[in-house]
Amino acid sequence: MNEQSYDLVVIGSGPAGQKGAIAAAKMGKRVAVVDRRTSIGGVCLHTGTIPSKTLREAILYLTGFQQRSFYGRDYALKDKVSVADLAFRVQTVMAREEEVVRAQLKRNGVTLVDGTARFTGPHALQVESPEGRQSLEAANVLIACGTRPARDPKIPFDGARVIDTDQFNQLKELPRSMIVVGAGVIGVEYASMFTALGMQITLIEQRPTMLDFVDREIVETLTYCMRQRGTVFRLGEKVVSVRVEDGARGVDGARGVDGARVVAMLESGKEIHGEALLYSVGRQANGDQLGLEAAGLKPDERGRVVVDEHFRTTVPHIYAAGDIIGFPALASTSMEQGRLAAHQMFGGGAAMRPELLPYGIYTIPEISMVGKTEQELTAARTPYEFGIARYDELAKGQMIGSEVGMLKILFDPSSLRVLGVHIIGEQATELVHIGQAVMALGGTMEYFRDTVFNYPTLAEAYKVAGLNGLNKLDAAQPNLPTGS
Amino acid sequence: MNEQSYDLVVIGSGPAGQKGAIAAAKMGKRVAVVDRRTSIGGVCLHTGTIPSKTLREAILYLTGFQQRSFYGRDYALKDKVSVADLAFRVQTVMAREEEVVRAQLKRNGVTLVDGTARFTGPHALQVESPEGRQSLEAANVLIACGTRPARDPKIPFDGARVIDTDQFNQLKELPRSMIVVGAGVIGVEYASMFTALGMQITLIEQRPTMLDFVDREIVETLTYCMRQRGTVFRLGEKVVSVRVEDGARGVDGARGVDGARVVAMLESGKEIHGEALLYSVGRQANGDQLGLEAAGLKPDERGRVVVDEHFRTTVPHIYAAGDIIGFPALASTSMEQGRLAAHQMFGGGAAMRPELLPYGIYTIPEISMVGKTEQELTAARTPYEFGIARYDELAKGQMIGSEVGMLKILFDPSSLRVLGVHIIGEQATELVHIGQAVMALGGTMEYFRDTVFNYPTLAEAYKVAGLNGLNKLDAAQPNLPTGS
Repeated sequence: MNEQSYDLVVIGSGPAGQKGAIAAAKMGKRVAVVDRRTSIGGVCLHTGTIPSKTLREAILYLTGFQQRSFYGRDYALKDKVSVADLAFRVQTVMAREEEVVRAQLKRNGVTLVDGTARFTGPHALQVESPEGRQSLEAANVLIACGTRPARDPKIPFDGARVIDTDQFNQLKELPRSMIVVGAGVIGVEYASMFTALGMQITLIEQRPTMLDFVDREIVETLTYCMRQRGTVFRLGEKVVSVRVEDGARGVDGARGVDGARVVAMLESGKEIHGEALLYSVGRQANGDQLGLEAAGLKPDERGRVVVDEHFRTTVPHIYAAGDIIGFPALASTSMEQGRLAAHQMFGGGAAMRPELLPYGIYTIPEISMVGKTEQELTAARTPYEFGIARYDELAKGQMIGSEVGMLKILFDPSSLRVLGVHIIGEQATELVHIGQAVMALGGTMEYFRDTVFNYPTLAEAYKVAGLNGLNKLDAAQPNLPTGS
Repeated sequence: MNEQSYDLVVIGSGPAGQKGAIAAAKMGKRVAVVDRRTSIGGVCLHTGTIPSKTLREAILYLTGFQQRSFYGRDYALKDKVSVADLAFRVQTVMAREEEVVRAQLKRNGVTLVDGTARFTGPHALQVESPEGRQSLEAANVLIACGTRPARDPKIPFDGARVIDTDQFNQLKELPRSMIVVGAGVIGVEYASMFTALGMQITLIEQRPTMLDFVDREIVETLTYCMRQRGTVFRLGEKVVSVRVEDGARGVDGARGVDGARVVAMLESGKEIHGEALLYSVGRQANGDQLGLEAAGLKPDERGRVVVDEHFRTTVPHIYAAGDIIGFPALASTSMEQGRLAAHQMFGGGAAMRPELLPYGIYTIPEISMVGKTEQELTAARTPYEFGIARYDELAKGQMIGSEVGMLKILFDPSSLRVLGVHIIGEQATELVHIGQAVMALGGTMEYFRDTVFNYPTLAEAYKVAGLNGLNKLDAAQPNLPTGS
């Protein structure tokens, strides 16, 4: 058992841990990152963002989804997309990404320590791995060891028919129907992907609404699109029990090739059937597995670590970042939290501007937003006007066969400042950054009116929406020439 | 013969004409647009931007081009893509776009006058159509009637084997090899599309270089990609004659199914063969067909109309916009010129900021830029530093199987102001608008460092390039913490 000493020990090698470690290393600090050899990159790389978003690209391509307005509703590139087709691309990308993460840490002189870390004191960590045990001394610690799926004991997980989001790649074949329990971001993303694959999806959520932080008009557009393709929404419904029936039990309902089916009983008395069930209700943070008490800390009931706006816990030299601190639990945000925490420790650094955080939801069609929603502005009694552009009005929208797509800009009618940008449709997660820059740098609606956009692009939607918004003001005050 | 009087008569219904007409109509003016019924939307809609960019989307999809890094170099969705496959989508989009243009003009109360316009006096126009002749009186005129392909009498155009860019849709089948003469934007766009289709392309250009307004590193990347796929570049070579040989003439060389081939003789003595030849050297502006003399104007030797920075000719009530005034002859810019010209006439309006004009080149891979190139900065003795990001470093780049792709930011090392953004790769024409907004609104490289970008996106390239650029400065001045 040897003892090593570091300026910073990072627990977890996901997006927050990586960026925190690299930022500290760039400032000349001696940095170690602790993670199991099989988990480099964290949930993001292994079961979260990377595989799910890669899966999504594969589904979009292999189903010919974006091309259906040209080639007809039933057009599909491969009539029966197999798990192998999908898994092939996912494996390729995961392997490459892991290589990227390892290379980046190595290039910056960060030590990778294989194993699982536990606090044995405020500055002392013990790392266990199959090869043995070692002790690390840390001047500073960044806790960035993320979350795992929450496991409800009522749900009979079997990794085959009843699965959590970590187990999708264990499916041997794609079921024709699936029950998705939980309409959070992850549940809705998977439900929309499966719908695109042609599965019959029933999405169950205990709360009466879903994606409450997203603009209602956008959520309604998504709901409409998913319903058009056959998704059944059961919002405000609670699952009381789940059982798997084998092939002998009956002949009706949705059954797999072997005749088995999953049945979810709802509190309202409804029985929902499917060949499989995906459980995506909440995540359990890993703060319960760190021996935090030895450092003078305590996780909350969901395993999360509480931090201030500088990502610092109540123990001054211990920070936390990423999913383990809770909302928004997005890779993009986690990276920035990790980086800012490192700067806080060693260099002093700017705080995050939460009003400019973008949100990307990788549903089909995808959603992205920055700033306030109509609901938030109304609740805050902030007057606003809006400008809108639909993709089918854009030449590019027609060229790519985009049937759905909309960009909405909310703005202050007197200062013309941009208050929020909400997009649903192809490239939404890319396009939102144009609006984000205009908001961050104090631009107004006149920026969109006066700027030349490449033609044909989807970015042109900003110009169309900008003119649309300004024309609404003109209608109220005629004789002020503004737009077309 | 009836006489009608308008506040504004617009000659031509392409992008410049449309936007000029609508801007004037929004200001309450009586507006007419003159164009032939079969030409609504102009070159842009009929033979230019719309069909060529739609063709490009169809080629990208039908050839599975973007997916080759996953499914192997020889992977193609449809083994033999036919002209009919390509034409189907192009026709769909053209029809929809024409509808959009007509509806937009109608909604704004703009009168469409069918026919060809000629000046009979500074305020008087005569319009001829198959149905007859009519006279229009115009308080103001906007000339926006574009260009046509230049026709070199040495080239034996036959619309079948030797074609100009207006005639691509007349091809009955796709040749296996093609000579493209002229490496301007249009020639290079077509050459790269044909290369993606698997054709053997020889690109001939009289000048020793191509796309001189584009950053050299970007042009070299494009050249490399096209060569990888078999394009032969013959720069600094002049075509002295072109002939079509029928099937009886020989047995060797590239010949069509009927044995015919096109032979281009170069001044250097080389003989270049192909099944077909596309001639894309220059465009002739239509200013020679307007009877400009009757209005007191004269087109230049290439038919162009000369205007000042407000798009006004030497006759104060006559303006011109779009391709007819020359460079850059992009639909995006033409729209803005038309709109600004109308505001100049009736409302006063801001001038264009040419330093913020984006350029989009729809090659495969696509190119976009805003601001200065390295060459321009060097020539102006402006010191600069650069930050770079390659798509294959980005998770999104890996997910979409993008093998090529790069974003480069040029910036002032002391003020950190952005001087230029240069992109080659998927979504380049969309992504450039993020950099454009930062430039326009006075942001610096720190904006890219401090901004959270959705993950995974290609937009993340800005953050990677931003950190890369700032890290270069740190290397020169250590101890200033900046990036990862």
